[in-house]
Amino acid sequence: MQDQAPTPRQPRPDSPITRASVEAWIAAKASEIPALSREHQRDAQAYQDTLTKPPGSLGRVEELACRLCAIQQRTRPEVEAKRVVIFAADHGVTAEGVSPYPQEVTGQMVANFEAGGAAINAVVRSVGSDLVVVDVGVAHPVAMDGEARVRRHPIAPGTRNFAREAAMQWDELLAALEIGFGLAAESAAEGVGLLAVGEMGIGNTSSASALTSVLTGRPVAAVTGPGTGLDIEGVAKKVTTLEGALALHQLAADDPLAALRCVGGLELAAICGFGIGAAAHRVPLLADGFISTAGLAMACALVPAVRAVLFAGHSSSEPGHRILLDHLDLRPLLTLDLRLGEATGAAMAMPLFDVASRVMSEMATFEQAGVSTREEGRDA
Amino acid sequence: MQDQAPTPRQPRPDSPITRASVEAWIAAKASEIPALSREHQRDAQAYQDTLTKPPGSLGRVEELACRLCAIQQRTRPEVEAKRVVIFAADHGVTAEGVSPYPQEVTGQMVANFEAGGAAINAVVRSVGSDLVVVDVGVAHPVAMDGEARVRRHPIAPGTRNFAREAAMQWDELLAALEIGFGLAAESAAEGVGLLAVGEMGIGNTSSASALTSVLTGRPVAAVTGPGTGLDIEGVAKKVTTLEGALALHQLAADDPLAALRCVGGLELAAICGFGIGAAAHRVPLLADGFISTAGLAMACALVPAVRAVLFAGHSSSEPGHRILLDHLDLRPLLTLDLRLGEATGAAMAMPLFDVASRVMSEMATFEQAGVSTREEGRDA
Repeated sequence: MQDQAPTPRQPRPDSPITRASVEAWIAAKASEIPALSREHQRDAQAYQDTLTKPPGSLGRVEELACRLCAIQQRTRPEVEAKRVVIFAADHGVTAEGVSPYPQEVTGQMVANFEAGGAAINAVVRSVGSDLVVVDVGVAHPVAMDGEARVRRHPIAPGTRNFAREAAMQWDELLAALEIGFGLAAESAAEGVGLLAVGEMGIGNTSSASALTSVLTGRPVAAVTGPGTGLDIEGVAKKVTTLEGALALHQLAADDPLAALRCVGGLELAAICGFGIGAAAHRVPLLADGFISTAGLAMACALVPAVRAVLFAGHSSSEPGHRILLDHLDLRPLLTLDLRLGEATGAAMAMPLFDVASRVMSEMATFEQAGVSTREEGRDA
Repeated sequence: MQDQAPTPRQPRPDSPITRASVEAWIAAKASEIPALSREHQRDAQAYQDTLTKPPGSLGRVEELACRLCAIQQRTRPEVEAKRVVIFAADHGVTAEGVSPYPQEVTGQMVANFEAGGAAINAVVRSVGSDLVVVDVGVAHPVAMDGEARVRRHPIAPGTRNFAREAAMQWDELLAALEIGFGLAAESAAEGVGLLAVGEMGIGNTSSASALTSVLTGRPVAAVTGPGTGLDIEGVAKKVTTLEGALALHQLAADDPLAALRCVGGLELAAICGFGIGAAAHRVPLLADGFISTAGLAMACALVPAVRAVLFAGHSSSEPGHRILLDHLDLRPLLTLDLRLGEATGAAMAMPLFDVASRVMSEMATFEQAGVSTREEGRDA
């Protein structure tokens, strides 16, 4: 086992990419996002009430169906082609001992995704989705031939240690945002009707906790949990590390971009760009657990219109996740005590979208089926 | 619209079936139920902990997988062939005005299932299950050719009005139990690996509320809700009707069989028999909403070993359902504010069983995948 500290890097040559460049990119993408169709949502609700069931009796499935109609701007939503995307990257902050797993596991697990042996592989086969894995900054990649598509776009061998310096340079942040946005655009062009996004990155609950504390104003201790399995001492050390990092970088909720650069991660930035891309292309997007929701919360902080395409797949057992979901006013579809990441919880919620779209497309109305309504019952 | 009161019936000719016959049948079936395999459950848990994920990180999906192993007595559970069963029947108590829908809707909805236009048809297509609908006592059947198999075994044209007399005779109750048990046995013989059970019957939340009050000792008012959509006045009238019925029949928790006969329903008795059959043939069985859970709670009251094969698909918005789930110590997999019945909530939970069985069968171990464990991380 090698020293887990990130390889010392040479200072980057001066990049022409500045904060202003990133802001301009975000503003340009935000301007591409179409307004949601309230008309389709209203029509969808009215149609729902003609179907052979007591009005409202399919509860949240009806809400889902109506939101899908609004996002896709059609009254018969279509989610047959599904895609799960995992962004993977490493985190320099692991040098502080914030995870019980060595950094090598990120690259090993990416190889496991590629070979088809991870939990998410079993889940995507089960729910009928394809899987795209993107290496945006794995420190120790492992070559592997297998069933999943792994795209290698490493921006850096992981972030820098944010306990000591900013996690990313502006050009690295922009590159990650662009990769995420581009994959959402490509998926939309390929006809994908439902996206889910997850992550792999040893140490990334530390980034997610730091970002959540900044965004929500909650103390670090309230949004920091055991991650993949720290004990109480380990969690206490993680809290101290994160408190130190927030003090070092002087972050505040009104500057989410600075927070994403200083304590974020390459995969978190890619998820943020992916969320902006899903909104720009009107594709419904399922958040997974704490880390993916943190990346999407950054997207909403930077571009509020992203919220309209988001759904929460599940509520994880990591304490910061519930706080983030409340912050985003997202109600999770599943509560299964998952804490794995890899988009597993988001993917497990995909079948409910199938159900919702089929209810809209396939159910008979009272009139078509010759079923008496309650009003007819009352008239009798 | 015809008078909704049940057709006056001739007194039945003396039947040789007595309470003792029903008790003997139940005792015989109970003796067929094999003990669950604790060994398979232990082996399954040990194997789970070798898979490439932090131990326990798939939460309730791991529990599901281990329970499946114990029920099926194998370490690689198999739920590919799924079956959703709906038992349909009418209720004489609708003469008391306990539902906003006319009794004819039961037969019309059975025809809608047969034609493929109901919510459950959309759901079973989505989750890859077949659907079997059984008429055990529809008062106004409607002929229909269509995609679903409807089996016609009407025991009577609905129950008698339990506000005035016992809902069923002993021979009717036994016939319903036998139909339910037989369908579970047949499904097991056909290789079905996962069952879900639901119902259709205008007025049947009244039966479910009465049974729940008797079983749990909670007052009728605490376990009675709007059903398909009663207003506050309607719910109050329903409570008064049920209180009167419980006083009339003098029911108590220590005699579930009397409760099932006096205030149950033909479909509720069939669901009860189905639960006993699923346990006898070791097939995992998903309860749906309030009514199907009430039928299965009766099965557990009569034959406690039934509980070991039961899973709760969802928690409905009908208030008595949560109370019954607590009574059975069943934790629902989904919470989607459904209140439709038809097995829709049970069927929507089926994909999670697919996921659980694939996790067991398809995931790589740490050793197979060459992924470092946390212990290796610590040793470094």
